[in-house]
Amino acid sequence: MMSIKAYIQHHVDSHFDGELPFPTIHRKVKKGTILTDFGQLETKVYFIKKGIIQVEIESPKELRVLDFFFENGFCASYSSLLSGKASDVSLKAVADSELEVISYADLQQAYQHSLIANKLGRIATERLYARRVLREKLLFTENAQENYLFLTSTYPEFIQYIPLKDIARYLGITPESLSRIRKNITS
Amino acid sequence: MMSIKAYIQHHVDSHFDGELPFPTIHRKVKKGTILTDFGQLETKVYFIKKGIIQVEIESPKELRVLDFFFENGFCASYSSLLSGKASDVSLKAVADSELEVISYADLQQAYQHSLIANKLGRIATERLYARRVLREKLLFTENAQENYLFLTSTYPEFIQYIPLKDIARYLGITPESLSRIRKNITS
Repeated sequence: MMSIKAYIQHHVDSHFDGELPFPTIHRKVKKGTILTDFGQLETKVYFIKKGIIQVEIESPKELRVLDFFFENGFCASYSSLLSGKASDVSLKAVADSELEVISYADLQQAYQHSLIANKLGRIATERLYARRVLREKLLFTENAQENYLFLTSTYPEFIQYIPLKDIARYLGITPESLSRIRKNITS
Repeated sequence: MMSIKAYIQHHVDSHFDGELPFPTIHRKVKKGTILTDFGQLETKVYFIKKGIIQVEIESPKELRVLDFFFENGFCASYSSLLSGKASDVSLKAVADSELEVISYADLQQAYQHSLIANKLGRIATERLYARRVLREKLLFTENAQENYLFLTSTYPEFIQYIPLKDIARYLGITPESLSRIRKNITS
């Protein structure tokens, strides 16, 4: 189980001494726990040591799954963090999860003077951004089967923990279409 | 016309002394210039002092407009930069443009030790990320008229310089649908 310290040593600076430039709190949450709700101001950043966080958005027609965040990465309602406005998404644990929690106020203070905090923030955001671009390209290809194959190969744990109906909502297709795709692939 | 120095003073650190932690080159390009082509490895980051850069992607069916970058912001084929792989997008100036060019090798060197370089990288990426999330949410709402209104209100220069057929390709609709939307709005 990776910690923020190990994440920094692995992705940011192999010589990192282990002294985090901000305090963190360890938190265990049960499956189904809402970390950030619609309309709430985001004040935290979460590092997922274990578990999966699902991001939902209310579209005019339905609730859509906008994103999933997995182990060994950061998550938050970033648009709320960065804009200072109420969140238009909710973050929900879809498996029992263990989190390392940073208060955004503490993080911003660390950003003032700490090289390692800025390196971490930069690299974590770059990684999120790269993932986002990839996802957007997949949306553009409009090929649900390719998107599904990408998801299952990148995140083998994906299909294991997430109800098929939520995967379908993420891909923007009906559960029936997803069943057909799965049958296609395995046959 | 904003420079990287002014960008840092405005968005990153108002006390910035003006000494950039990496060399930059000033470059003027004509409308239609390809900055980065499909299959090319991205080695530069561009700050747009003036002009518009269009990002295109080859989807199985057609060439799609993935994104536009405007004045006073950074652009690059980020997925190529961050992955070290050949670019699957092209960057094209769609207006005569003035750029401040940073070599990615120089930027990476500055990232080793420079607090201001890391602050700049973090904040520029955060801003790109926030824009991306917003765009993805708009794609999810699947309402071309709202997307169009968002674009034109956020970027009033948008409709002025960009051919309608490219705006339509960006919104993922036909030029005829875009004409109907424009008629709807003005009537």
